[in-house]
Amino acid sequence: MENFRAHLDKFIKINDEEYASILSFFTVHQFKKKENLMKEGEVCRSLFFVSHGCLRKFFINEKGVEQTTEFAIENWWITDTFAFERQVRSDFNIQAVEPSIVLSIDLASQKVLLEKYPVMEHYFRMVYQKAYAAAERRIRYLHEFTREELYVQFSTQYPWFIQRIPQYLIASFLGFTPEYLSEIRARLRS
Amino acid sequence: MENFRAHLDKFIKINDEEYASILSFFTVHQFKKKENLMKEGEVCRSLFFVSHGCLRKFFINEKGVEQTTEFAIENWWITDTFAFERQVRSDFNIQAVEPSIVLSIDLASQKVLLEKYPVMEHYFRMVYQKAYAAAERRIRYLHEFTREELYVQFSTQYPWFIQRIPQYLIASFLGFTPEYLSEIRARLRS
Repeated sequence: MENFRAHLDKFIKINDEEYASILSFFTVHQFKKKENLMKEGEVCRSLFFVSHGCLRKFFINEKGVEQTTEFAIENWWITDTFAFERQVRSDFNIQAVEPSIVLSIDLASQKVLLEKYPVMEHYFRMVYQKAYAAAERRIRYLHEFTREELYVQFSTQYPWFIQRIPQYLIASFLGFTPEYLSEIRARLRS
Repeated sequence: MENFRAHLDKFIKINDEEYASILSFFTVHQFKKKENLMKEGEVCRSLFFVSHGCLRKFFINEKGVEQTTEFAIENWWITDTFAFERQVRSDFNIQAVEPSIVLSIDLASQKVLLEKYPVMEHYFRMVYQKAYAAAERRIRYLHEFTREELYVQFSTQYPWFIQRIPQYLIASFLGFTPEYLSEIRARLRS
């Protein structure tokens, strides 16, 4: 769980004893590639931190096609925030893209953790602030760019995106068909 | 500033003396309709809370057209989070849609406020968590819905959106021309 400790250290000061106590609020899971962490229709019980690997969040659109809206690699948090906060059914799925090691916490445990370690309010404030800043920019890109430009934008901003994510999932994230993505890649190479 | 007090009370417990002290970290402004709070190219110095009125955030696209990405009415916070956090130039504009009363705080003052009143970490954590949850859903809608469906979605979810926002700004937010918005409204009425 070195990644989690390092990520906490970026935002807050805690000693080894406090870290051990904070960590005890979390459950560690290992997920195989394509294993589901949460399925559409289930109450959203967990907030996930990716220690190793990669997860994605997706929904199934009217045509029955999986539409990926988010990826999470090392040091990213992922859940359906709206459904987690309210403990209601989610209309998203969360699935492992790679074999992954993940920490999870439920809402009641998070509440106790925050009461015991108020410094974690600062940590989560920074996590959500940064996530919101990224979402604000992404909403702008969705307005501003053509799909080809979106591909270039994400490739430049997140180099791991192209290196680690299978092509059919990149296509699903950008709302392309895999064939259209191949065309764009060919055009950009030429 | 009753709205600000009521909004704080939704998330944290503070007495009148603490409230007065917290409020002293903020500056109160009055803006006329169409007055600018922040212009593209300026360093993003302020985080704004709308006490009365309505603000919008927009950028100017390649064709020179204003593209609105966000509205903020009473009890909403607005800034360019990415640029505010880093104190760098913003590529957004913030402007009053209606005559507005707004609280502002700069990054250094917010830091001191958070040190003096750690309970404000909880408050801002909840503000950003809720903002992020709304952004997650909006990203899904941008993938899932046609533009006509987006209009119906926003009208249903945010009734004030249709009541308060001038039509040409609704069009700018949804990426329509004003003419196309009139067509949609006519179609929905029939």
